[in-house]
Amino acid sequence: MPIDPKKALGAKLEPVESSWNDDKLILYALGVGVGVGQSQVDPKVLQYTYENVLKPLPTYGVIPMFAAVGGLFNVPGLEFNPMMLLHGEQYTEIIEPPLPTEAQIVTEGQISGIYDKGKGALITIDYITKEKRTGKPLIKNVMGVFIRGEGGFGGDAKSPEVGNVPPDRQPDAVVEYKTLTQQALIYRLSGDYNPLHADPGYAQKAGFKMPILHGRCTFSVAGHALLKACCGYDERKLKSMEGRFSSPVYPGETIRTEMWVDGAIVSFRSSVPARGVTVLNNGRAEIA
Amino acid sequence: MPIDPKKALGAKLEPVESSWNDDKLILYALGVGVGVGQSQVDPKVLQYTYENVLKPLPTYGVIPMFAAVGGLFNVPGLEFNPMMLLHGEQYTEIIEPPLPTEAQIVTEGQISGIYDKGKGALITIDYITKEKRTGKPLIKNVMGVFIRGEGGFGGDAKSPEVGNVPPDRQPDAVVEYKTLTQQALIYRLSGDYNPLHADPGYAQKAGFKMPILHGRCTFSVAGHALLKACCGYDERKLKSMEGRFSSPVYPGETIRTEMWVDGAIVSFRSSVPARGVTVLNNGRAEIA
Repeated sequence: MPIDPKKALGAKLEPVESSWNDDKLILYALGVGVGVGQSQVDPKVLQYTYENVLKPLPTYGVIPMFAAVGGLFNVPGLEFNPMMLLHGEQYTEIIEPPLPTEAQIVTEGQISGIYDKGKGALITIDYITKEKRTGKPLIKNVMGVFIRGEGGFGGDAKSPEVGNVPPDRQPDAVVEYKTLTQQALIYRLSGDYNPLHADPGYAQKAGFKMPILHGRCTFSVAGHALLKACCGYDERKLKSMEGRFSSPVYPGETIRTEMWVDGAIVSFRSSVPARGVTVLNNGRAEIA
Repeated sequence: MPIDPKKALGAKLEPVESSWNDDKLILYALGVGVGVGQSQVDPKVLQYTYENVLKPLPTYGVIPMFAAVGGLFNVPGLEFNPMMLLHGEQYTEIIEPPLPTEAQIVTEGQISGIYDKGKGALITIDYITKEKRTGKPLIKNVMGVFIRGEGGFGGDAKSPEVGNVPPDRQPDAVVEYKTLTQQALIYRLSGDYNPLHADPGYAQKAGFKMPILHGRCTFSVAGHALLKACCGYDERKLKSMEGRFSSPVYPGETIRTEMWVDGAIVSFRSSVPARGVTVLNNGRAEIA
């Protein structure tokens, strides 16, 4: 049996060391489309792209965990075709905002849930990213991946899914950001080299008409919208964010994020209006 | 006297070690606008931006020398305000095309000419980039910089300027590439962090209405046009290129490159049609 919860649940992934600095923060910001359709002298662009005034985008928190994702392919009891993996859900939390502009870090991961969803398996992995020298926790992430075709192993079907539902009223804020056709090509230089986001042949074999944008890139575009509409560009205010990837974004599309503000909690949903498709659903952000 | 040719001419710059790899080649290609307004599945985009099919753009030859440019500020007999420096001319030659997709290199520079142009000084620097392990020469560059306000030191006025003049006929080929408003912000991650290309206040103090695109980025956009129109995207064919920067490009503008083919020599000229301004003049390329 390829998926065996008895073996895999609770398994720890190999800790991975990495680091970030000005260049990595800037590359990430450009990779999530900061500056697209904006003026080059706009301080709202430069604060994320020019080292002399640099602030980290809070969603950079999704990046350091990525180095540890590969460990997922070495867990006994989790045998599957990587091409069938889809990023399903993401939670990210900056433990004490804001992030520093440079850090030496270590990221630890652990399989926290395995659910039998019939058509596939949902696996959740908890990640904690700590400052290497002091061990101080900086970032918490939970990643949910859906492995298509790997259901039916008889496991628990009821998962604690990301399931926040926005209130039944018009959104309090709406922000649109255009992406570039080469957006995924820039974004992948931040460390996620899955060929699904660049290789047309690979994408077709995986069942998509063309390479798709990274889920974490779409997630970051939504974070950029929250930062603008709900945080007044104060990155200390975006404490945590979660959402469920409901459909892929193709690079070049415009992503619209609708936001409902209820005190410290913002419900949000992102869509591609040109195709009438919701791409990031059940969004919930905590604003400090 | 700030500029003293007797002291400075022939001075050698500190050799600088660096390297390149897939990521650096891809970042550079995206920095010069490969993919702007193109499809993400276009093989002409992916061959410069996706590691599994990667070819180096031949104009990447202008990048490794940059690490050695800083040595210019430590040459006895060359004292000037860095803000007054403008990139005037560039020659680059791939000694045995094509470039490898990765290399450990060392770049040596030498002051090869100092000319008194009245309003300023023209300084030429020869750079040679060698493979570190074998010492094999890979790239030759000549960079001409114009130091505004530093003329009148009584030196030689007659410089061997880049001065190729295109023939008196309609161009044989014309290629236009749009740049992004954030183009300089992407390009500078290839190693040229001069604030002139990012900082609105600095750019104004230096006499420009806003940050300008790097000369070598404009040069590379022209190289991309040559590669398309005159080399059939065969990077082994673009042996050398030279040109003179006659006016700045502002990020976001469209650059039109006109080309005149005469056997192995292509004369070229780049302009910003929207402002009717020639930005790269006296261009000459040698096609193998």
